[in-house]
Amino acid sequence: MGAMGLIVQKYGGTSVGSIEKIKRVAERVIKLCEKGNRLVVVLSAMAGQTDALIQLSKELTETPDPRELDVLMATGEQVSVSLFAIAIKSMGYDCCSILGFQAGIHTDQIYGKARIKNIDTDRVLAELDENRIVAVAGFQGVDENSNITTLGRGGSDTTAVALAAALKADICEIYTDVEGVFSADPNICTHARKLDRISHEEMLELASLGAKVLDIRSVEFAKKFNVPVHVRSSFTRNEGTMVVGEEKEMEKVLVSGVVYDKSEARVTITKVPDRPGIAFKIFDPVFKAGIVVDMIIQNTSVEGITDLTFTVPKTDFQQTSKLLREVAQEIGAEEVLGDQDIAKVSIVGVGMRNHAGVASLMFETLSKENINISMISTSEIKISCVIEEKYTELAVRALHEAFGLADEKQRDE
Amino acid sequence: MGAMGLIVQKYGGTSVGSIEKIKRVAERVIKLCEKGNRLVVVLSAMAGQTDALIQLSKELTETPDPRELDVLMATGEQVSVSLFAIAIKSMGYDCCSILGFQAGIHTDQIYGKARIKNIDTDRVLAELDENRIVAVAGFQGVDENSNITTLGRGGSDTTAVALAAALKADICEIYTDVEGVFSADPNICTHARKLDRISHEEMLELASLGAKVLDIRSVEFAKKFNVPVHVRSSFTRNEGTMVVGEEKEMEKVLVSGVVYDKSEARVTITKVPDRPGIAFKIFDPVFKAGIVVDMIIQNTSVEGITDLTFTVPKTDFQQTSKLLREVAQEIGAEEVLGDQDIAKVSIVGVGMRNHAGVASLMFETLSKENINISMISTSEIKISCVIEEKYTELAVRALHEAFGLADEKQRDE
Repeated sequence: MGAMGLIVQKYGGTSVGSIEKIKRVAERVIKLCEKGNRLVVVLSAMAGQTDALIQLSKELTETPDPRELDVLMATGEQVSVSLFAIAIKSMGYDCCSILGFQAGIHTDQIYGKARIKNIDTDRVLAELDENRIVAVAGFQGVDENSNITTLGRGGSDTTAVALAAALKADICEIYTDVEGVFSADPNICTHARKLDRISHEEMLELASLGAKVLDIRSVEFAKKFNVPVHVRSSFTRNEGTMVVGEEKEMEKVLVSGVVYDKSEARVTITKVPDRPGIAFKIFDPVFKAGIVVDMIIQNTSVEGITDLTFTVPKTDFQQTSKLLREVAQEIGAEEVLGDQDIAKVSIVGVGMRNHAGVASLMFETLSKENINISMISTSEIKISCVIEEKYTELAVRALHEAFGLADEKQRDE
Repeated sequence: MGAMGLIVQKYGGTSVGSIEKIKRVAERVIKLCEKGNRLVVVLSAMAGQTDALIQLSKELTETPDPRELDVLMATGEQVSVSLFAIAIKSMGYDCCSILGFQAGIHTDQIYGKARIKNIDTDRVLAELDENRIVAVAGFQGVDENSNITTLGRGGSDTTAVALAAALKADICEIYTDVEGVFSADPNICTHARKLDRISHEEMLELASLGAKVLDIRSVEFAKKFNVPVHVRSSFTRNEGTMVVGEEKEMEKVLVSGVVYDKSEARVTITKVPDRPGIAFKIFDPVFKAGIVVDMIIQNTSVEGITDLTFTVPKTDFQQTSKLLREVAQEIGAEEVLGDQDIAKVSIVGVGMRNHAGVASLMFETLSKENINISMISTSEIKISCVIEEKYTELAVRALHEAFGLADEKQRDE
């Protein structure tokens, strides 16, 4: 940020994980202030704090009351913002910590994963008008009865982007422990390239397909209100990745990134009699058990008989199999098969909209490596394939290479 | 409490100092509920928490911003009430934690030692109407701009009594780590007797003269709104001390208790020219430095010259002496003397109002022990004497014996 403006920043738990780190964040914020910017700084709880509080509640019961757990959790961010404000003020700058209820962050009443309904920005704007740095507690809000709610893991990202939207900030900077959004996980793909720009749509797909750098709800906010988001590291001065509204130029790039997700398992129910209402019969008990189903594949039926396959979180695999065996008997299906050793590999890019042959190249690439595809799911800007888990890293590297995503400099080495 | 009613209870930091202790408090509260009582439970931060948070802020600066320190401190009670509510709910009873801002505890804006201005009881009453146990975070409130304030050490006592007054509770029970209010400190006076009943006025004097069992502001509230307060131990089932409006019967007791205070030092400015405005000249710089002056003694002047003696906290002794030496030079007084090795010993009792000779007996008792009195201060229901610090315990025991305060059973031993 060279130009002066209103900046919303968010620092995650590792960025404020100690008194020393809080001081360094404070110094960084002050430097931006000195350039004439107005700053709203959203903070997470100090690393480890949230888990420590959950642990404390678990000593009382395995199933702590959700409302009270939110009251307990919210103290984590309260500690961060007050310490941060103390740090800023001790350095001679004015600062004011603002909690969820003070920041007018109104949510629904779903404790533990509340959604922001609206933000009343009066208080934050008043503090900015007093030339104060405003430190907002992330992750928390209040429902219509002033009960404390929390937004769930990653909620501070959402707080920051939603605040940036409500304040019409010039930019929302998300500081994290990585350099930005990469074309693939740098841990398994050494040629992965940090993306300079990416569209909100692509980021949304990447986040939902397994990239952990940004909370998916924060990207939804950014897309809805067209907030430019800068994902960058709090440990370097390097530029990170700008997540912005779609630009003409972006369409030239076929694929922006490759992501994978090993957290799901596959379940198949075979020889299902294909008649109206059968899908409802199969999925109803699964949904009622609160199990989130991801990909669903139903083949065209042959002679009134079909197979139905879908993926669920690995943690729900046993329960899903049990429920399905009951259903199978009831509807006269043959058997229930399952596989936990799968991975979902996806490619994402707005360029797919206008280019044919992206899917072909993906399938060809996997085929060349002798990787079998067991499920396929597509959307306008992504293609996902389910493969054997052991081929995950190989598939990611091969696709990264095939779509020319590697960092040019690194490729020359 | 045998009868059904609305009970406000307060548990201090040691009573909720661990998960185990929180469970025990929850069980105690549930038992009272089962008898048909409605319960409002005010909690302090878990023992050690407040100090740990202060320590954290001190790692940033020796002088943390007061507003932000209050935001930080308030998390201590927030943790207690949420854990307590989790405990109660896990035991199958309904409970709701309420923070200062939710409980409508409105204070002035003096961070760190705010005073309660009024309490909007709507929310607490609504929760009681839902048959919930209401767990209120002690020690905290909000100013008119929704900034978090704290009431200072002992503030949870004040929260409890003020809430009891606002809710017109039948009783306010203060649970602490001692059995009640004693006729003298049991640590130095083995014959000290637990008082069954004591008047608000006497408790006020005892609290201001050094008894630490109840915060003085909570007693002021209790007196002003005539709230019966039961001071008792959270570790036993024994009855403690009832602090109540004055009763006829109480006047028969000459003296209720003996207290001492070793926290003050004495300063004397000698040969002060006695002319109008001289007291103002002397005390103005002291007050302006925020130093709290306790006893002030000015002798009748002889030939237009007088000595002036007063006590200040030992921690302010050096600064006071320095300020006074400057004043002495300015007004032409002779010199500034000081003594840090003093103690104030006091007797308190509403019976003094109607009985002569109480002061005589006090002076005679001290004289018999060869204890010299250097300052005397009296009010309607107390007499305080400043003596050499080393005689404190001897004086307390002698006065306790002389006024017949000893536990009869113990005396027989």
